Amino acid sequence: MFLGIDYYPEQWPASMLEADLDNICELGCNAIRIAEFGWHIMEKAEGQYDFSLFDHVIERAKARGLSIVMGTPTAAIPAWLAKKYPAVLSEFENGAKRSFGGRHVYCFNSKEMYAYTERIVRAMAEHYKNEKAIVAWQIDNEFGHEDSDMCYCSQCRDAFRAFLREKFNGDIQALNDTYGTAFWSQEYNDFDEIPLPAPTITTHNPALRLDWERFRSESIVNFAAFQARLLREIIPGVVLIHDFPGGGLTKHVDYSQVSRHLSLAAYNNYPVWGGQREPLPPNEIAFGLDYIRGLKGKNFWITEAIMGAQGHDVTGFSPRPDQAKMWAYQSMARGRESLFFIRYRGGTKGAEQFCCGVLDADNVKRRKYYEVQSFFRDIRQYAPQLAGPISSKVAIVYDYDSLAAFRIQRQSVLLDCEAEMKKYHKFFYERNIPVDVIPADSGLEAYKVLILPQMIVAKPEFQKRLKSFAERGGTLVLSYRDFVKDSHNNLVLGKQLPVDFDEFAGICVTETESLQDGQDFPLIGEGSLAGRRGRGGIFREMLEPRDAEVLLRYDDSFYRDFAAVTRKAQEKGSVYYLGCGLEEELLRQILEQVSAEQNLTGIPSAPGVEVVCRGSGKDAVRMVMNHNPCPAEYAGEALAPFQCRIIPCSGEPA
Amino acid sequence: MFLGIDYYPEQWPASMLEADLDNICELGCNAIRIAEFGWHIMEKAEGQYDFSLFDHVIERAKARGLSIVMGTPTAAIPAWLAKKYPAVLSEFENGAKRSFGGRHVYCFNSKEMYAYTERIVRAMAEHYKNEKAIVAWQIDNEFGHEDSDMCYCSQCRDAFRAFLREKFNGDIQALNDTYGTAFWSQEYNDFDEIPLPAPTITTHNPALRLDWERFRSESIVNFAAFQARLLREIIPGVVLIHDFPGGGLTKHVDYSQVSRHLSLAAYNNYPVWGGQREPLPPNEIAFGLDYIRGLKGKNFWITEAIMGAQGHDVTGFSPRPDQAKMWAYQSMARGRESLFFIRYRGGTKGAEQFCCGVLDADNVKRRKYYEVQSFFRDIRQYAPQLAGPISSKVAIVYDYDSLAAFRIQRQSVLLDCEAEMKKYHKFFYERNIPVDVIPADSGLEAYKVLILPQMIVAKPEFQKRLKSFAERGGTLVLSYRDFVKDSHNNLVLGKQLPVDFDEFAGICVTETESLQDGQDFPLIGEGSLAGRRGRGGIFREMLEPRDAEVLLRYDDSFYRDFAAVTRKAQEKGSVYYLGCGLEEELLRQILEQVSAEQNLTGIPSAPGVEVVCRGSGKDAVRMVMNHNPCPAEYAGEALAPFQCRIIPCSGEPA
Amino acid sequence: MFLGIDYYPEQWPASMLEADLDNICELGCNAIRIAEFGWHIMEKAEGQYDFSLFDHVIERAKARGLSIVMGTPTAAIPAWLAKKYPAVLSEFENGAKRSFGGRHVYCFNSKEMYAYTERIVRAMAEHYKNEKAIVAWQIDNEFGHEDSDMCYCSQCRDAFRAFLREKFNGDIQALNDTYGTAFWSQEYNDFDEIPLPAPTITTHNPALRLDWERFRSESIVNFAAFQARLLREIIPGVVLIHDFPGGGLTKHVDYSQVSRHLSLAAYNNYPVWGGQREPLPPNEIAFGLDYIRGLKGKNFWITEAIMGAQGHDVTGFSPRPDQAKMWAYQSMARGRESLFFIRYRGGTKGAEQFCCGVLDADNVKRRKYYEVQSFFRDIRQYAPQLAGPISSKVAIVYDYDSLAAFRIQRQSVLLDCEAEMKKYHKFFYERNIPVDVIPADSGLEAYKVLILPQMIVAKPEFQKRLKSFAERGGTLVLSYRDFVKDSHNNLVLGKQLPVDFDEFAGICVTETESLQDGQDFPLIGEGSLAGRRGRGGIFREMLEPRDAEVLLRYDDSFYRDFAAVTRKAQEKGSVYYLGCGLEEELLRQILEQVSAEQNLTGIPSAPGVEVVCRGSGKDAVRMVMNHNPCPAEYAGEALAPFQCRIIPCSGEPA
Repeated sequence: MFLGIDYYPEQWPASMLEADLDNICELGCNAIRIAEFGWHIMEKAEGQYDFSLFDHVIERAKARGLSIVMGTPTAAIPAWLAKKYPAVLSEFENGAKRSFGGRHVYCFNSKEMYAYTERIVRAMAEHYKNEKAIVAWQIDNEFGHEDSDMCYCSQCRDAFRAFLREKFNGDIQALNDTYGTAFWSQEYNDFDEIPLPAPTITTHNPALRLDWERFRSESIVNFAAFQARLLREIIPGVVLIHDFPGGGLTKHVDYSQVSRHLSLAAYNNYPVWGGQREPLPPNEIAFGLDYIRGLKGKNFWITEAIMGAQGHDVTGFSPRPDQAKMWAYQSMARGRESLFFIRYRGGTKGAEQFCCGVLDADNVKRRKYYEVQSFFRDIRQYAPQLAGPISSKVAIVYDYDSLAAFRIQRQSVLLDCEAEMKKYHKFFYERNIPVDVIPADSGLEAYKVLILPQMIVAKPEFQKRLKSFAERGGTLVLSYRDFVKDSHNNLVLGKQLPVDFDEFAGICVTETESLQDGQDFPLIGEGSLAGRRGRGGIFREMLEPRDAEVLLRYDDSFYRDFAAVTRKAQEKGSVYYLGCGLEEELLRQILEQVSAEQNLTGIPSAPGVEVVCRGSGKDAVRMVMNHNPCPAEYAGEALAPFQCRIIPCSGEPA
Repeated sequence: MFLGIDYYPEQWPASMLEADLDNICELGCNAIRIAEFGWHIMEKAEGQYDFSLFDHVIERAKARGLSIVMGTPTAAIPAWLAKKYPAVLSEFENGAKRSFGGRHVYCFNSKEMYAYTERIVRAMAEHYKNEKAIVAWQIDNEFGHEDSDMCYCSQCRDAFRAFLREKFNGDIQALNDTYGTAFWSQEYNDFDEIPLPAPTITTHNPALRLDWERFRSESIVNFAAFQARLLREIIPGVVLIHDFPGGGLTKHVDYSQVSRHLSLAAYNNYPVWGGQREPLPPNEIAFGLDYIRGLKGKNFWITEAIMGAQGHDVTGFSPRPDQAKMWAYQSMARGRESLFFIRYRGGTKGAEQFCCGVLDADNVKRRKYYEVQSFFRDIRQYAPQLAGPISSKVAIVYDYDSLAAFRIQRQSVLLDCEAEMKKYHKFFYERNIPVDVIPADSGLEAYKVLILPQMIVAKPEFQKRLKSFAERGGTLVLSYRDFVKDSHNNLVLGKQLPVDFDEFAGICVTETESLQDGQDFPLIGEGSLAGRRGRGGIFREMLEPRDAEVLLRYDDSFYRDFAAVTRKAQEKGSVYYLGCGLEEELLRQILEQVSAEQNLTGIPSAPGVEVVCRGSGKDAVRMVMNHNPCPAEYAGEALAPFQCRIIPCSGEPA
Repeated sequence: MFLGIDYYPEQWPASMLEADLDNICELGCNAIRIAEFGWHIMEKAEGQYDFSLFDHVIERAKARGLSIVMGTPTAAIPAWLAKKYPAVLSEFENGAKRSFGGRHVYCFNSKEMYAYTERIVRAMAEHYKNEKAIVAWQIDNEFGHEDSDMCYCSQCRDAFRAFLREKFNGDIQALNDTYGTAFWSQEYNDFDEIPLPAPTITTHNPALRLDWERFRSESIVNFAAFQARLLREIIPGVVLIHDFPGGGLTKHVDYSQVSRHLSLAAYNNYPVWGGQREPLPPNEIAFGLDYIRGLKGKNFWITEAIMGAQGHDVTGFSPRPDQAKMWAYQSMARGRESLFFIRYRGGTKGAEQFCCGVLDADNVKRRKYYEVQSFFRDIRQYAPQLAGPISSKVAIVYDYDSLAAFRIQRQSVLLDCEAEMKKYHKFFYERNIPVDVIPADSGLEAYKVLILPQMIVAKPEFQKRLKSFAERGGTLVLSYRDFVKDSHNNLVLGKQLPVDFDEFAGICVTETESLQDGQDFPLIGEGSLAGRRGRGGIFREMLEPRDAEVLLRYDDSFYRDFAAVTRKAQEKGSVYYLGCGLEEELLRQILEQVSAEQNLTGIPSAPGVEVVCRGSGKDAVRMVMNHNPCPAEYAGEALAPFQCRIIPCSGEPA
């Protein structure tokens, strides 16, 4: 378990190093993360490598027993490279190059970027390959953050055409047939005629746009894999990480594919950021952690845990005393192996002056410093428990292609796929039932409940696994807009919805409607939900039930004949179909029925009190976290505002 | 009377053609519209024409007695053309070319576009000139839709300069004098110095901007005329149509000028579209129909009538059972000769996956199919009545130049010229009094009431016709901002407002004020409106009455001496002047007085029930449409939600 | 005292000149302003100078005893220049050139602009140098208005690099150290690698951005100085003015630096503009006047006083009868020496058709004409009083660098530095206590109270002057975010906040928080404010008081230990520190304490009634202005709506 801090020695006078490292040790750290934005420091001019700064820092850190996480510096290219090859800079949608002076401004399809990346990474890896103090290498920084996953330059255009040529084996007619380019006379005679989906009139072909989304993702995955290959080639057995930013489900890159090239996923966990009125609610922070844990299906690291207000040009809510410390506990609880705070001392120069550190510019030890110190002191006692895996019986399943399909055609202005996933997640979070957020190609065997919100792209192989899951006793929860498209983002000619799942779910979708802000519709219960009434919104499908049991039916004129929510029993398990957006209370009733069916029992706790079990047998502990700004109680014991108590539990499994 | 459907055989497997045509016949169609986006199908590579697909479709359609509406395919240029001549692509305001991959992306001033258009249209026309099954040709598709009426490329810039050179007979000083370029030192020494009104600091010269608006319109009119000439040259007597989109009054093209080159106007009638919360209210749908009927002053076709929810990336409200069918009745009632539903089966591929067809992707006949079938069965009985003309005694009159002048200088942020026109229209709509929406160069003789909302440009010839209209017994309703500018979009030196109409209207405008959201002012009645009180907004003119009768006066401090609404009797008729925006109730009172003056009597009906008389003498019928989602009653007979009943009437003229 | 009107003879038929000048005299004018946009009139083609139009106008004006204010015409370059050197046109952020056809479209770093400016200004100055009727020259027009202070062209890029090369004496490492470019690997090896802060990912370095802001300002100051040098060289003793637009505190140019090159500041005073719902409240108009007076610390001119509604494409509120006249009185009262109304007759052609003149296009003398006439008649009696200086005991102090720092990093979305200044200003305005708004390099000796809202950049020399001010008896009012940065826009390593002022203010800032819309926090009084309660917002600093007295403390959980507002007595004076945004009532209580401390007594008046004393001794008058749309009373005398009464006062100093 590494408990560390992000330290940027290049930003401080050399004379401060010894005192800084002393204080880092006093804080309770056993590791530091360095070098992630240090390209120019290490290569001041093309080919002139100089590692003396980091050599010295590592030497002084080792002298104090500190381990090192080393970053490759590619997220911020040096100015001399941008000047020599302006084509390295990526482009906005309007065709303007991104200006040097920010970060993440390189194009993932630039040959020069690959060439210079190879040189600096090789040089670093060769230089440090025998340095035992380096316990992990971080590749680049926050891939795809802040729209850096998108570029409209001619390199990307050419690479996209090459990507399509390869995908369709050079057969342009296959592409035309697949995309249905006969629509609007868009047949291509050659791959070189294919445009990027840049601004046009009306909109681009949705199949082309899905391939563009896949291409964008592959561009980043390839770049990550390239760096990983280089490092593994030179440093066999190296531990490779990448520090993912938040919002992974909305990016033009599939982080689960990036993670395949890593040893461990890492996460930069920012529950509050400039311009946010308040921190994310605890369940949403938990969702982000559960999503990162799902990338590789195992515990992860936190590379950036915050201790104060954050923001570039605008700041916002300042975490209350003990609140950021509690977030550190929470991320530990939900699957973190190691944790680094961002950053030792807030920057006095450069764009992140208002991203607070553990120390501020005035270099005075105050509340934040002592909170980190006490957190490290406490948490290191539970290393054995926290090293163990988290095993959940419930999973929320996503798919990059389906998420991309909704970026392309949102269908309902109210539909936010991630928000939909969070609604299900919240139900289990509030009951302290462990839940995973996983990509569709994960193993499904360990689960009892699988929830598939808006998985619009129907993939036959995956559908087969789902049917088998339900037949063998699992509960499958499907939602509106599941299985509407084929893998090309086309509708499926001659098949009723949900495609290839209508019989299995026992229903068929006959009509649909997209709702807007302030619009909803009444619902009325039947069967196990008889007597229930409530409202729905966002989108609705008029379901014609066949052999499914109706749980909710529409209750407005014209649509009373149609079901809204159904359940069909399978050989051993069952399939629920939620044909519309549901208000929280109705969703609660359905998920309670699902939970009861699968004997999922949670741990009761007061509102805002999160309980997570870690470890097993007699070592097992309960981490009890009070997210409230006021005192609360758990199991008869008082919890101060934002307090986390770790208590032995009676041996039940996590 | 053609009752048909839009069919895109190029989008479906060839094997489906026979069954599709069978179903189209079963639906009750006697016609199909094809080919409007089929350029690449017919010319796969430059000069390689191949009409075999449509030949085959026409042959199989004819075998079933179906007629054909043939589209020229120019709205969607082929990719090979965009690749060979990138200059064919139009440009956004920021100078970026529109990307291939949408539609309507060509520049109307591209020489290459003209050249290739001529070749494909000639080839089609020569190929099909003797095909008797073709009952009409549609030129292009929805000219100017979705901002395709605007382009900032260098071809447009050069053509604009040529347009001005011609307009001013090559005399740059004449242009300078006309535009008043002495203002801000903008005198041009040469036509080649004249800019497009691209983004600048402050704003461009309003006279230049009006000429730009005229040039934009002429660019499209010329292109339409060019195609029309080609087709008429090759196919003498050909019936030519164009399918206009909605929103014609806000476009940078004068559809009434395009219509001069057509045999018939046609309309793509979308009462609801993606992102709309609800369908347009019935009176606004009617306004759109009345506007299209006014383009040529005669009955028109519907080329795209919808049957379900529509939208590109976002969908919205789904028309209720029978609602879209009722819209089909309504458009028939208000002057439609023939109607085609869009489209036989919704597309599974391409950008319009969420534009529903009569069938959905699953190809199952459901409610929508049977509604169309019953509509066709019913409506064909009334062909004689529907073939007759609609004659209105009331017209709302517009002028492209005046509408453009308000796009250039909106004056009040609340002023929406089309919305103003709809307020007057609604009054007559609700009383089931037929009303036309016509361009100012239409014949005025048949009318009793002419309403001229915001006709800011004063054209002497037209003003003479108006005065004569009022002197001969007509009632003229003028509004604030009528006759403020000359035909160059300049204010008129030394003339009081309304320019050249102050004496005739018996008033003069002394001061003006533009109101903003939430701002209004009190009004108090006099004379025939004595005792009335209400509010006004949007814009107001302080009227100094001369020999006009005051109907409403301002009732707030400082402005009590000024009139707001006046009436002046003429030799036989009268002129009303509405000097400010009026709340609905006050406008109602004024228009009732106008109606009474001209003995206009409507047909009383319950709210949401529209009644239109068609045919004459003993054949005359009343089409009674219930736009309500609940039952209503008319003449003692029940109307189901969205039902249309066609009943004989007692012989009164339509 | 010049009482005049802006007259554009080039916009009217020559035949109107005599009558226009007669009417101008009848109006009571003794001066006209001409030629400010007349470049093409004077130089129709390169090098062909022709001053005959203005010669004639001046001759006819002189014949009537009118004086002339002459403008250099550079604000609107001629089309032939833009055509010959397109590089003269400035660029938007997206890289597009500003289109010819507006105004202010030239780049301040264009060599050609300098060359052609020199030629036209020299030619004009040589031509008119002996013309005694010309009483002042105006340079250009409204520098930096409407974003013309910003340009992203390659000339600006190169000039910016040269600016930095000079600033850092060619030492790129000095720049790297100063900017802290080690952050995000942004070290530059050469000045030619430095970007403009054009769009990028994340954001640019704040030190670079502050230098960019300084460079933008210097670009304009240099251009103004260049014209001033030319004119002074040719016309020794010339009176030079520039007509500043409103909003000077938010511009990318420091108007106080421009003013150093002028004889007098002038102001275009637009209390209402198109799209504004209502005129600025009287205190904000006064703020604008006080700010302009502060530019040179002396009386100024009004070059554009309005008489009616104004706007380019949209108009808005129309000033009520006597309201614009009252604004003329108000600007006179607050330090105006001379005043010109904009414009004699509103333009009939060109972009300002909806900027009303004293006459409208119809050329009829109405209310506005007679209001101006009566104003001129009245005000000329008070020339002696109005010529005297205004001396204030209170100053609100600003600093271009600090204002720029907040444009770069706003910190709180609610923080509007100008709005903060206006809050303090309003307190004194309402009590009719004279107050100055001055740049930080002004003399401070005459003041008793200095208020420094958000002066984030700490400049040692200025801080020394402030301390001395407080020690010698002055009251210093500091605010949150004072003295956080050094002069490079960096945080200051190892110093507590407020930097170098913590001891003097007796407090230290330990934590901060940025609030958002709808968020506030409770405050509770102590000491002299004991028992007071209220709310704060926008931003807060948790103050650790040392030897300062606490006036307000935070009253919410977690922060009760921290002070919000403090006061520390100095040798003779005192320092207040306002650590957060305060609601109006709390700010009032504090400023009343400040006022009492310094014996500042105002003149009581009813709400909306402004009283200003001018002149001294027995000549002194009180100008009493009723800003209300209803009658009010002062000193027992009735004031009509918008009336200004000038009454003798009992000799107290202004």
